[in-house]
Amino acid sequence: MQANFFTIHDYPQGTPPRELFELRHATLPELNEDEVRIRNTWLSVDPYMRGRMSGVQTYVAPFELGAPLEGAAVGEVIESRHARFKVGDRVRHMAGWRDVAQLKGEVVEPLPDLEVSEQAFLGVLGMPGMTAWTGLNRIANLREGDNVLVSAAGGAVGSLAVQLAKSRGGTVVGIAGAPDKLEWLDQLGIRAVNYRGKDALRLSADLKAACPDGFDVYFENVGGACLEAALNNLKVGARIAVCGLISRYNDETPDPGPSNLAMLLIQRARMQGFIIFDHWTEYPHFLEEVGPRVARGEIEYEETVEEGLERAPEAFLKLFEGVNRGKMLVRL
Amino acid sequence: MQANFFTIHDYPQGTPPRELFELRHATLPELNEDEVRIRNTWLSVDPYMRGRMSGVQTYVAPFELGAPLEGAAVGEVIESRHARFKVGDRVRHMAGWRDVAQLKGEVVEPLPDLEVSEQAFLGVLGMPGMTAWTGLNRIANLREGDNVLVSAAGGAVGSLAVQLAKSRGGTVVGIAGAPDKLEWLDQLGIRAVNYRGKDALRLSADLKAACPDGFDVYFENVGGACLEAALNNLKVGARIAVCGLISRYNDETPDPGPSNLAMLLIQRARMQGFIIFDHWTEYPHFLEEVGPRVARGEIEYEETVEEGLERAPEAFLKLFEGVNRGKMLVRL
Repeated sequence: MQANFFTIHDYPQGTPPRELFELRHATLPELNEDEVRIRNTWLSVDPYMRGRMSGVQTYVAPFELGAPLEGAAVGEVIESRHARFKVGDRVRHMAGWRDVAQLKGEVVEPLPDLEVSEQAFLGVLGMPGMTAWTGLNRIANLREGDNVLVSAAGGAVGSLAVQLAKSRGGTVVGIAGAPDKLEWLDQLGIRAVNYRGKDALRLSADLKAACPDGFDVYFENVGGACLEAALNNLKVGARIAVCGLISRYNDETPDPGPSNLAMLLIQRARMQGFIIFDHWTEYPHFLEEVGPRVARGEIEYEETVEEGLERAPEAFLKLFEGVNRGKMLVRL
Repeated sequence: MQANFFTIHDYPQGTPPRELFELRHATLPELNEDEVRIRNTWLSVDPYMRGRMSGVQTYVAPFELGAPLEGAAVGEVIESRHARFKVGDRVRHMAGWRDVAQLKGEVVEPLPDLEVSEQAFLGVLGMPGMTAWTGLNRIANLREGDNVLVSAAGGAVGSLAVQLAKSRGGTVVGIAGAPDKLEWLDQLGIRAVNYRGKDALRLSADLKAACPDGFDVYFENVGGACLEAALNNLKVGARIAVCGLISRYNDETPDPGPSNLAMLLIQRARMQGFIIFDHWTEYPHFLEEVGPRVARGEIEYEETVEEGLERAPEAFLKLFEGVNRGKMLVRL
């Protein structure tokens, strides 16, 4: 059987060009004992993948040049030599960026039994959702009534973070850029602040207007002017969960950081980076808490879908333009 | 009775000029009920006082223009209308920058009964010592065997921080500039790294050479290139206690921050600012642990002394030149 997959042939500087991504084909060998073959139905593209294209070992290994790229995917088992799986099972795994995956059964998870679409397990109930929940609860120690600021609030992680925070009672402010994201936030009762065309000072003033008392928690996805403006609007004892710094991922040269880090001192604030893979043992806890709320329709989630494997690079590159609302997905 | 005191007549931008400080005289009124009169013997000058000269409300109120400046001092009670104090008692209080203080007894503390010099209660057993202990133990959660980096390691706070860290067993590296500070660190078995004339990249490389495994804890007193270099040398799960950012206190315009804050994310590190006044209820705990060690001579501490009230401004201004070793004091 033939599999089609994307690979990269170089580690790019700056914004990856479309030509970096090469669609290749391979004939899959017969299944070995304990392996399963999966026809992928949905692929995830995520900002953290940019880090794996840098050629540098950070918290995950770089992608191997010429080998299939990796990422979260869901699909259907079409052949199985593993006792746990049978043909027709719906599963999630990390062999994305391809149409057919062949894997050891031990690295494949059955999809949880919940009344939600299967692609929800790549977004609101997958890594992005788990990231929002962990950042708020485990890193920022969100408390009842906290005022919460979220950057990239219309994105896959941020859009869940604002809703989880909102259900805890304080003022929630979301920073976004695209008009439809700002409107979506408004409809949810989130105070939406547009970052576009604003420097850190102007953005600071707008955050102050949106939440004059300041923030107990800042969920940081962006960096740059958003971080600087947030630092100017912290309450005493504030906690910043640093989930991502997407404004920086394509920088070719290091950009200076915020000039007001002294606010950490003045406000006795804490800023902590986290990587969701460290917290994955808590996934069942997250799923138990958030899964039923998603199934009951209490949590809104958006998807931006590109159609067809060949569009995966476009889906990925759009993440850095900020045009996706909610989770960016590729449907096969 | 006449008292002599320093005041300032303006909130300076940048490095305060010597002329900012004015020596004035006042005749003290008769003691009221519950008041004590104290002849100060030692005055403390500390970097945080620069913040009180900015005219901006931060975590402490700005100094009042024309009023006596404030700061820690020790002295001897020369008159008392407070039941707790009698003439001859040795005390500590916050009415420094003057020769004679007149205060409500409730804001005056008797010096603890320990076999140490009285000025030790302004340094190693005063606010700076308490700051070192709190930053390591309460903010950075120092653990047995941790590798610890301290900036301004020859200063009042840093010189205790390195010794407290060293007694917990890991590699301890101190950043300093003056040759005598570097030598003093060496003699204590602390790996000393000179920051002078080095940019962040060069300093990063030197820290890496001094402690190739990286740091579990960074005790931050300085900011600037020290912070950037430290961020490049964190271990996974590192904790940064932000005690001060002295390199920035006299900046006239905001300087950009470190370009590598993403290291917080990559290393899942935590950076937390603290203000020692929030933790003062723990002072007895600190004194119980560290006091006897100082009395037994197990902890070395240095003092840099200026003689006479009129030299207090010089003592203060020298803090920003990095020329004091250990605690900077004024002897009256």
